[in-house]
Amino acid sequence: MFETAELGHKIDKKTYRELVPQLRADLLDAQYDLKESARHPVIILISGHDGAGKGETINLLYEWMDPRYLSTLAFSAPTDEERMRPFMWRYWRALPPKGRIGIFAGSWYSIPIQASIEGQMSRAELDQRIDQINRFEQMLVNEGALILKFWFYLSKKAQKRRLKALEKDPRTAWRVTQWNWERLKTYDRLIEVAGHVLRTTNTPWAPWIVIEGEDDHYRAIATGKTILDAMRTKLSQSEKLTTPVAPVLRYDIDGRDVLTELDLSKKLSAKDYEDQLARWQGRLAELIRRPRFKKHHALVCVFEGVDAAGKGGAIRRVAAAMDARDYQIVPIAAPSDEERAQPYLWRFWRHVPRIGRVTIFDRSWYGRVLVERVEGFCSEADWLRAYAEINDFEHELVSAGVIVVKFWLHISKDEQLARFQARAETPYKRFKITDEDWRNREKWDAYHRAVCDMIERTSTGAVPWTLVPSNDKRYSRVMVLQTLCKRLEAALDGRARNKR
Amino acid sequence: MFETAELGHKIDKKTYRELVPQLRADLLDAQYDLKESARHPVIILISGHDGAGKGETINLLYEWMDPRYLSTLAFSAPTDEERMRPFMWRYWRALPPKGRIGIFAGSWYSIPIQASIEGQMSRAELDQRIDQINRFEQMLVNEGALILKFWFYLSKKAQKRRLKALEKDPRTAWRVTQWNWERLKTYDRLIEVAGHVLRTTNTPWAPWIVIEGEDDHYRAIATGKTILDAMRTKLSQSEKLTTPVAPVLRYDIDGRDVLTELDLSKKLSAKDYEDQLARWQGRLAELIRRPRFKKHHALVCVFEGVDAAGKGGAIRRVAAAMDARDYQIVPIAAPSDEERAQPYLWRFWRHVPRIGRVTIFDRSWYGRVLVERVEGFCSEADWLRAYAEINDFEHELVSAGVIVVKFWLHISKDEQLARFQARAETPYKRFKITDEDWRNREKWDAYHRAVCDMIERTSTGAVPWTLVPSNDKRYSRVMVLQTLCKRLEAALDGRARNKR
Repeated sequence: MFETAELGHKIDKKTYRELVPQLRADLLDAQYDLKESARHPVIILISGHDGAGKGETINLLYEWMDPRYLSTLAFSAPTDEERMRPFMWRYWRALPPKGRIGIFAGSWYSIPIQASIEGQMSRAELDQRIDQINRFEQMLVNEGALILKFWFYLSKKAQKRRLKALEKDPRTAWRVTQWNWERLKTYDRLIEVAGHVLRTTNTPWAPWIVIEGEDDHYRAIATGKTILDAMRTKLSQSEKLTTPVAPVLRYDIDGRDVLTELDLSKKLSAKDYEDQLARWQGRLAELIRRPRFKKHHALVCVFEGVDAAGKGGAIRRVAAAMDARDYQIVPIAAPSDEERAQPYLWRFWRHVPRIGRVTIFDRSWYGRVLVERVEGFCSEADWLRAYAEINDFEHELVSAGVIVVKFWLHISKDEQLARFQARAETPYKRFKITDEDWRNREKWDAYHRAVCDMIERTSTGAVPWTLVPSNDKRYSRVMVLQTLCKRLEAALDGRARNKR
Repeated sequence: MFETAELGHKIDKKTYRELVPQLRADLLDAQYDLKESARHPVIILISGHDGAGKGETINLLYEWMDPRYLSTLAFSAPTDEERMRPFMWRYWRALPPKGRIGIFAGSWYSIPIQASIEGQMSRAELDQRIDQINRFEQMLVNEGALILKFWFYLSKKAQKRRLKALEKDPRTAWRVTQWNWERLKTYDRLIEVAGHVLRTTNTPWAPWIVIEGEDDHYRAIATGKTILDAMRTKLSQSEKLTTPVAPVLRYDIDGRDVLTELDLSKKLSAKDYEDQLARWQGRLAELIRRPRFKKHHALVCVFEGVDAAGKGGAIRRVAAAMDARDYQIVPIAAPSDEERAQPYLWRFWRHVPRIGRVTIFDRSWYGRVLVERVEGFCSEADWLRAYAEINDFEHELVSAGVIVVKFWLHISKDEQLARFQARAETPYKRFKITDEDWRNREKWDAYHRAVCDMIERTSTGAVPWTLVPSNDKRYSRVMVLQTLCKRLEAALDGRARNKR
């Protein structure tokens, strides 16, 4: 990866001065075009060797462009709010919205590379992280982002020269610390690790740009021109490019599927219900308060289901077992404009609970492959790639100790009709049903198919779907509580196999 | 405050069961009305004695209302992100948006009360905090919030009885710890401190509601009814109630004011400019990197000014002296819908820098008393009360070590015309001026008056306005840099008198 960056590239002062004015004007133009079109964010990662000009380059970009629409995220040690959530949470919350440029000084690559050099991360762990990063970047690109990953390279000799030069100049001496000299000793190890990381993350959608770092003029011009060309190309693309997606193949041979096979006749008597409800609510209350949960886990519950299947009632029975100070219920409706300016999953990442806490989603990210698919709110490519993105998201949660439990509450078409009619007749105005409910009902078959596809593609070992027969509300609620308790117990008793 | 809560209020089980169904239905109705009107948030503070039923009451509210539109914020020790910002930041970021109910378990009262009991906060400091809290709550109410502050009271004997009862019941025994018994020893001290706090924060706009905590039924019904009545009253108010505001009195006797008296003829030669620019940028770079700044201070720069006065150019000269990893530039345009659902200052609180960092606002909260006043985007009462709210906001920043520097860049009406014409003729499409700029120019006199009022009312000892003659861009930029350096030096050398 680094051979082409040892050529001794140089640009003399005169040439540099000739090149800069046009480059600045063009970059500024591109930046305003980006802002006005507001169709995609630009994510610039600045990484490389100490002394290779990372800080200088960032400051130069600020000088050349309009700094009001740039943001720089400098990641160092995670804060405690970040440490209590999955690894990627801090990067998600820092993503620039569409139309803006975000510069990452220290990115999702920094910690894995540093930990690998220091021997705190095995190669296998590193490769897992790399896989996660590649998927993350692919998702960002599919969501419209332009990702530019720079590696400013210095040979070992050049790095020594740079550090000495920096140390000599009183204006920059403060930047060279004993730590930098210590790090120079691990140069070979860094080259080995970074070489591996760059090679395996050098994807077609987010390739690395390795730039020789020794000559300030060359580095500046090369970086500026690269950003300009990439932004122009991106801005000129009228169609949205996304990962190739295979259609869903489904052969309906005998009319049987996971939903038709669900036994909706299951029932509980009032007496059994009271007993069971108290039993499982008590169990849940106890599990959530265990020190092991408080210190190492979090809980995410997802409630999806047919309209009028009783999601609200089930959520209330779950919530009743917990302390209001420990959970949040997040009802998913139309996204806010800040959410629309971000990748699809951003609005859910916002609500990922910290360790020891619970988030209950009333509808969820599965809207992408349910209502958005059926109503055509997103393109086919968008919802087809969503299955894998959702699995990645949930896997990241699970890796961080989050227990993810997903429910599909199902009722028959007849039962739905009966409930709709009952609601329409009930005096409480709140439960009057809307025209939209009736419209959705007309699309029963399309939703049926979407649900089957969703379950097939997103019910994984670590995060299975639980299909809940809900014609009988009592049975449904108890099954939800019981499932939650069993999943929690499995995780807390260490019998879980929920780490890939 | 507490005498009325020692009456031994009780409600028997039968009466309770008769009262609850209607109360629940009514609360649910009120909650949905609140959600649909989306005109104001409801902020419920739950405080009081250990064992007085704080947690139970919150959980009951969740049972009675729709938990999807409730949020509970449990504040315990601040996280490090919170510790690195002003005291109120954590509460600002937790405020419920319009249409929602936010329950605060542990609020802005908890830390001052606890610190006073433990002797870590003097009465004078407590009173300062109380003053701050009263102003904060008044601002919330003026912005449309309904604030309900509950204190669940127990006499010393009753508290002992409650703790013993909780300990005896296996379902609640986990809630009583040695710490609770320790706290009981400081009961008298709590009564003394809480009595003082409740009395001095028992404002007309946000009075305390003291409820006897021993009987579960009584506490539940009293709390529920109070919330219901308050919500109904609030929902039925068609006009917006705000603090009385006095009009701005200004007698233009001799046509002289701070702007007319500004010497706009000030100039710098090209040579002097280069020298001075380098000098002050160097100084600024050094000041921002001092350990004392990094550890104890943050910097907020506010740039306001006449259109075309050169705010952008000045900001770039300031930014050039800093490391992009240390600052953010926040350009203020139209608020997002999430911002519109919050009190006016919320969108600025979001960007308050943590200790060691810098935020540069390109236009700011002063929009309220400038463009919003002149264009009539808010009511007269709104902008009139904004002066004091802004002073409070800036004072909170200053109290937390933030150095706040505010610039008004001023040019003459002729100079503006010349710049507008020059812009219109410049080929770079980006600098074409808009129709809005010409429209604003027609309101020159109204803006002139608004600026004078703003300076008069918000130039305070700790946070003065700096009026920058900007007909000459070179002079303007150097003056901005020099002012920044002097303010930073004063704060870092400890010569500052910028704490009230």
